[in-house]
Amino acid sequence: MGIRLKIPTNHVRSESLKIREKLIKGEESNVVAKAGLIAHGRGEAFDYLLGEITIPPALFAARAAAASLLLASHPVISVNGNSAALVPDGLVALSREIPADLEVNLFYRSRKREDAVKAALKSAGARAILGVGRDANAVIPELFSERRKVDPQGIYSADVVLVPLEDGDRTQALKKLGKFVITIDLNPLSRTAQTADITIVDNLIRAAPNILASVKEMKTLDKTDLKLICDRYDNKKNLSETMLYIRERLRQLSRDN
Amino acid sequence: MGIRLKIPTNHVRSESLKIREKLIKGEESNVVAKAGLIAHGRGEAFDYLLGEITIPPALFAARAAAASLLLASHPVISVNGNSAALVPDGLVALSREIPADLEVNLFYRSRKREDAVKAALKSAGARAILGVGRDANAVIPELFSERRKVDPQGIYSADVVLVPLEDGDRTQALKKLGKFVITIDLNPLSRTAQTADITIVDNLIRAAPNILASVKEMKTLDKTDLKLICDRYDNKKNLSETMLYIRERLRQLSRDN
Repeated sequence: MGIRLKIPTNHVRSESLKIREKLIKGEESNVVAKAGLIAHGRGEAFDYLLGEITIPPALFAARAAAASLLLASHPVISVNGNSAALVPDGLVALSREIPADLEVNLFYRSRKREDAVKAALKSAGARAILGVGRDANAVIPELFSERRKVDPQGIYSADVVLVPLEDGDRTQALKKLGKFVITIDLNPLSRTAQTADITIVDNLIRAAPNILASVKEMKTLDKTDLKLICDRYDNKKNLSETMLYIRERLRQLSRDN
Repeated sequence: MGIRLKIPTNHVRSESLKIREKLIKGEESNVVAKAGLIAHGRGEAFDYLLGEITIPPALFAARAAAASLLLASHPVISVNGNSAALVPDGLVALSREIPADLEVNLFYRSRKREDAVKAALKSAGARAILGVGRDANAVIPELFSERRKVDPQGIYSADVVLVPLEDGDRTQALKKLGKFVITIDLNPLSRTAQTADITIVDNLIRAAPNILASVKEMKTLDKTDLKLICDRYDNKKNLSETMLYIRERLRQLSRDN
C-alpha cells in the first residue's frame, strides 16, 4: 500500500516556474502586492489538483462568460495586480474584442500600485483605463477602507463585471449591488467561486485566451442565441462537476501500488 | 445539485491571516525569499484541504519523528527562511530538547539572508548556528549552485536530518547521501513528501510543538522502545491515509445540496 507520484512533464513544470518569475518581477515593479505572491501560491496548489489543464467545466464556463459579456450593455473588466502581471495582453485584447472597459481594482490600493498596473496595461496597448487616482471616487457599500473604491464610469455603473482573482467580500458586495459577476478562480470552494454568477475554475493564463476565443466565435450570433447559451449555464452544477473532477484526480494520484 | 461552502470559523481564518503577516514581515527583513511567499500560499491551500488541523496520520508521523531524532547519533535541524519566520522559538526549543544542531540551509542562498535567518534564531535563544558564511563549505553532490552548500559539522555529517519545507531535489540528494530524512510538508504528493523517510503532512506551526511534546514524553524511554516506535511506522501507508482523509474532506465540502 502506498502512493506513487506522477511527476508532471518537464514542460508543464517549467511553465509554472516561468509564471512564478512573472509574479516576482511584478512584485518588484509594484504591480503585485506581497500578499499577491501568497495568493498565487494558493492558486498553484489548486492548479496542481486540476493537472494544470483547462478541464471541461472551465471551458463551458468560459463560453457562458463570453456570451454574457457580449450581451451586456456596460461590461467592465476589473484588473488587479496579479492579473496585470500574468496576462496584460490577454485582458487588453479581450477588452477590445467585446468591447469592455478596463478598470484598475486593487485590494491593497495605493497610488504607486494603481500607476504601476495602469502602466502594465498601457504597455499591453490599452487606451482608456478607469479606476486610477481621483477617478475611483464611488464607493461600494459595506466594504471598508481603500477596498471599496470604484470608478463611477466603470464598475459602479456596469451591468456585467469580469473580476479575475477577486476576494470573497468584494464579490459578495458586487452581487449585492446587483452586478452580474463573472470570476476566474482556481479554488472552487472559495467564497468568490461560490458567490459569482459564472465561475471559471482555471488558471487565468489559460482562461483569458479561452474567453477571447469564445468572444470571437460568438460575436456574430444574435441576442437570442447568446441568451440561450447563458440560460443553459448552471454555476452550481458546473462547480459540482469541477469538484468531482478534482476528487477523481486525487484518487488517481494516490492510487495504491 | 450544487456545492455548499463551509466557511471556517473566524478564529481559524484570523489565525491564517496572522501567519501570512509573519511571512510578509519575514520577507521584508530578508529572512523569507519572494519565492518563499509563493510557497507559503501553496501550503495554505493544502492546509485548507486538511481543515487547518493536525490530522491523526500527522500526529503519528510526529511521534515517529521524535523517536528517530532521539535515537540519532548526530541529528540536525535544517532551517530555511520560511521556517525561521514561522516558528523560530519552536525550532530552537526542539534543538535544545533533543539535543540537535541547527543549520541554516537556504534554497536562495545569500550572505544577507544567511545572516537574517541566523539573527532570527539568535533572537529565539539559539546558541550555536551552523551553515552560515564560510562554514557552509561542504557540497551535496548532484545539486547545482548555492543550493548544494552544507556545513561539514552539520548536515554533511548528520545521520538524521529534519528538513521542514524542503524542495524535492534536495530531499532526494540527502537520501542519496544516506541520510534518514524527516520532513514537514503540507503537500502529500510533493517529491519531498514522497522521498522522505518520515513525512509529517501538517502546518509547521502545529507540527513543531507536536514533535517537541513527543520528544519530551519519550525522552526517558530506552532505545529498544524508541526503535519499536520507529519500526512500526510506515511512511507510504501514512501518506495513503492522509490522501484518503483529504478525499473524504473534499467529499464533505462538496456534498450536494
